[in-house]
Amino acid sequence: MRELLVELGERTYPIYIGEGLLNAAGDLFTQRGISAKSPLMIITDENVVAQGHLDKLQAVLIAAGFKVVTSVINPGESSKSLLVLEKLIGQALEEGLDRKSTIVALGGGVVGDLAGFVAASYMRGIKFIQVPTTILAHDSSVGGKVAVNHPMAKNIIGAFHQPELVLYDLETLQTLPKREVSAGLSEVVKHGLIWDEEFVSWCDENAERLTALDADALGYALFKGCSVKAAVVSKDERENDLRAILNLGHTIGHALEAVAGYGELLHGEAISIGMVGAARLGVKLGASEEVYTVTKRVLSRVGLPVKLPPHLDTDAIMEAMLHDKKFMEGTIVFIVPVEIGKVEINKSVSAALVREIVEQLKQEAV
Amino acid sequence: MRELLVELGERTYPIYIGEGLLNAAGDLFTQRGISAKSPLMIITDENVVAQGHLDKLQAVLIAAGFKVVTSVINPGESSKSLLVLEKLIGQALEEGLDRKSTIVALGGGVVGDLAGFVAASYMRGIKFIQVPTTILAHDSSVGGKVAVNHPMAKNIIGAFHQPELVLYDLETLQTLPKREVSAGLSEVVKHGLIWDEEFVSWCDENAERLTALDADALGYALFKGCSVKAAVVSKDERENDLRAILNLGHTIGHALEAVAGYGELLHGEAISIGMVGAARLGVKLGASEEVYTVTKRVLSRVGLPVKLPPHLDTDAIMEAMLHDKKFMEGTIVFIVPVEIGKVEINKSVSAALVREIVEQLKQEAV
Repeated sequence: MRELLVELGERTYPIYIGEGLLNAAGDLFTQRGISAKSPLMIITDENVVAQGHLDKLQAVLIAAGFKVVTSVINPGESSKSLLVLEKLIGQALEEGLDRKSTIVALGGGVVGDLAGFVAASYMRGIKFIQVPTTILAHDSSVGGKVAVNHPMAKNIIGAFHQPELVLYDLETLQTLPKREVSAGLSEVVKHGLIWDEEFVSWCDENAERLTALDADALGYALFKGCSVKAAVVSKDERENDLRAILNLGHTIGHALEAVAGYGELLHGEAISIGMVGAARLGVKLGASEEVYTVTKRVLSRVGLPVKLPPHLDTDAIMEAMLHDKKFMEGTIVFIVPVEIGKVEINKSVSAALVREIVEQLKQEAV
Repeated sequence: MRELLVELGERTYPIYIGEGLLNAAGDLFTQRGISAKSPLMIITDENVVAQGHLDKLQAVLIAAGFKVVTSVINPGESSKSLLVLEKLIGQALEEGLDRKSTIVALGGGVVGDLAGFVAASYMRGIKFIQVPTTILAHDSSVGGKVAVNHPMAKNIIGAFHQPELVLYDLETLQTLPKREVSAGLSEVVKHGLIWDEEFVSWCDENAERLTALDADALGYALFKGCSVKAAVVSKDERENDLRAILNLGHTIGHALEAVAGYGELLHGEAISIGMVGAARLGVKLGASEEVYTVTKRVLSRVGLPVKLPPHLDTDAIMEAMLHDKKFMEGTIVFIVPVEIGKVEINKSVSAALVREIVEQLKQEAV
């Protein structure tokens, strides 16, 4: 088992990564002081249930003396809505969850974001545990950003609400579809690109082991990815400055997701295209050509798209970007690579330049 | 102008109380570093608009260089819903509010709670200013509790989100209906009952001046009420222990509001009846009879009900109490007076005893 801490003063919490960790959930929850008197609610989705993870976690927790209630949502981004939030809070009330209760998110990023916002807002905040079951969720489960979507914009209604712990059982990743494996590796590569050149080289060399879900490679990559995330979040919990670097690829990526209608492109795929765009922008602003070629090569090797689907409307993409949270006081905030493993926060990128990049991304050779 | 500070470390903020303070809003906002570059959104209700306060505040802020957008909701508790939240967040997006924007709540408790939760959740939290226009809001506008209702329970979806400042213009209180004046004084009296015997005597002696909206008396009473609230919140921002004393009268009161259907009883009226119940409970548990007689007398003198409407069903009231946030790990948490100006947090009050009190409250002489 690998362990690391997200250092946040009195909100510091551990991340555990290892094979078969669901079996240790009872002990790890108890160690962290989770109440066995108040009901604990596991929120998960139908896919996770079908894979047997809910049955397993539930059995382990009941055996450890917890009062467990469960709630199963439909998989997919459309569940991240205020309507589903209201239903879950109704269920929490019916099941008697109180201020000492805990919400456990068992699933990918959608489950984590939604369940986390239930925990953040129910009775103005109760405890919360992340049990990610996708690679992508190594990113969303660390750092305390939780949210639901508004019909007009993604993740716009939310909170900063740190979990009590993150429990990552590598066995739950073995059943992931190939496309989701690649999409998840997008954020892993991102953590290298913003912080750790050596780790980018490692990903470049180990791309095949990663896409084949080699347990050793995967455990190491998730540990490295979570470590970068934890280091950044520890320095800037509420995104006053540094934390914004985690948004590499997201300015364009979020806009693509919005325009493609939350479904055509997986989050990791949209971010991959966004990172290629950011690398192109970096080169235009003075970085070496290598920033672009390496970024594109590593992302391709882990099975990700690097070209923007040409049928997506450029005007619509630009419009979506202006509704993004990264638009502030009249300026687009862009994360721009300056070399591999290093980015800068650039607040003076013109909309015209971004539009040019978007057009180029439609021509990208694959 | 009276000024006091709510001491909360880096979240410390000032409360200003005085006549004609709306005219100073521009200066006070600027002093607190509110951005004039990003749009600022005033959320208010139709009643406040009818009284001319919105026009006044808007003109003052525009003259001071702020970009002002406004949103007017229907008055009343039914606006504290996720549906209205979603609409307001949609409007914030349309108007281009960004992470440096500020939400201003101009109105009573409903506007403050709702606008506060918009500010807490929009982009995971933006700045927030309270401009209360009711007496009751002296309570809700201080301390950072914000929320909307769920069909099953009041204030169950929310956050702790402290304002940047509270601006209390006594002139806005002059148009309040008589019934709302009394309802507002309920929380003023409560702040005396939990913390300050001398202030309870003062309320007893000055009840007529208060209900007649004498500016001197009102300014003093609101300053005292806010001071007690600020002192308690400073010691326990997130209601881990002490802050619970602010719930005097609320265990029964919230249940009455829920059963009466959020409308028959104003919040302050329900809390008044709840405080008489809590005083009865205190006497049963050993406090002097005076605790009950003084509590009831002061509340009557400021024009509040002290008898529970007999048609409200006792079973339904008990059921509603069990869905309250104050129910924790299987126990009702009750705030019980031990003497005038002092209460204790009692976690061992039996449901049977509470039921007995509810029945007695239906027989209360008026």
